[in-house]
Amino acid sequence: MKLIDFGNTNAKIYHEGKITTIKVEEFDFSQKDFYYINVNESIKDKLKGINLEDKFTINSNYKGLGVDRKVLCYYINDGVIVDAGTAITVDVMRDGAHEGGFIYPGIASFYNLYKDISPLLKIQRDSSIKSFSLPQNTTQAIEFGIYYPLINGIKEISKDYKIYFCGGDGKELSNYFENATYIEDLIFKAMRKIVEENIC
Amino acid sequence: MKLIDFGNTNAKIYHEGKITTIKVEEFDFSQKDFYYINVNESIKDKLKGINLEDKFTINSNYKGLGVDRKVLCYYINDGVIVDAGTAITVDVMRDGAHEGGFIYPGIASFYNLYKDISPLLKIQRDSSIKSFSLPQNTTQAIEFGIYYPLINGIKEISKDYKIYFCGGDGKELSNYFENATYIEDLIFKAMRKIVEENIC
Repeated sequence: MKLIDFGNTNAKIYHEGKITTIKVEEFDFSQKDFYYINVNESIKDKLKGINLEDKFTINSNYKGLGVDRKVLCYYINDGVIVDAGTAITVDVMRDGAHEGGFIYPGIASFYNLYKDISPLLKIQRDSSIKSFSLPQNTTQAIEFGIYYPLINGIKEISKDYKIYFCGGDGKELSNYFENATYIEDLIFKAMRKIVEENIC
Repeated sequence: MKLIDFGNTNAKIYHEGKITTIKVEEFDFSQKDFYYINVNESIKDKLKGINLEDKFTINSNYKGLGVDRKVLCYYINDGVIVDAGTAITVDVMRDGAHEGGFIYPGIASFYNLYKDISPLLKIQRDSSIKSFSLPQNTTQAIEFGIYYPLINGIKEISKDYKIYFCGGDGKELSNYFENATYIEDLIFKAMRKIVEENIC
């Protein structure tokens, strides 16, 4: 089963247990034998595989939930789902129902934003675990600003729920939570479930 | 007493009980009779007034604290100071000592950042009080992302401290806190205190 997750820049492909990422423009659009989800308007008429978007529903009152978030919600019955990529989406599922969710800028875009506000606020990103004692210099003050409010916000809405992280920054962020799991291929696990329960 | 707070774009002038804001390039640099603070490197050699930066100190271990934050900390003995402008700075003072602080992007820059991440995430800013129940559409999801983590972050570090808000978005943000005061001219109150205690 070949599964593809088309974004605005990249296509993530799951095939025979391996995940590869290519630029969307490098994709061979003559291919037919795959299941996909797509958020990229510019290619939607060129895709010849099977679009999973219309093959499933979730229990939600949220208007305009992106298909990628919907797919993840389909897979998790109870818990908080954090997809940390270009944007960070946080969704809450309880008893199979989507209770709502919020959108936060991606970690990388934050670093750029500080730099744009003032050249004095340009710092290097590193992946060390931040301590969150009250900052005593500019680097700490910015790292605190990027991570601490987000982490507190997620903690506030997740309470005792299990938190499922995925996306490029999911692994790093999951380190700040006790009740967290990072699942690299969560989107593909979820897509596979949709295929198995709704198509096969 | 004329007091001027020079930023990178604007100069805020306090004179005879009134605050006016002008573009830095509109300032008459031949003037001499004023006290000022300045974060704008490009004009620092042209200013003929009295620079308050070297006239006072605060008790802090923070390396590289901006003069505007330092001035505010000089004025508040106990409490959290939130200056919400192009950037949002949050500083904690206890018993006259600066315990540290963090820097967050300004509210307006957040709205722009979402729009840059995806045109689907472009929403209009409005000044209504946000509810923070779990969002059920894109606008709510973004507003929640902008306000909720920041407000939670400030609450976490402020505990039972009084919170003093200033800056362009200070009034709006102060609405989300019970123990908050908005003081529009906080920076000038602080500058006046420095003049009175260290110069006159």
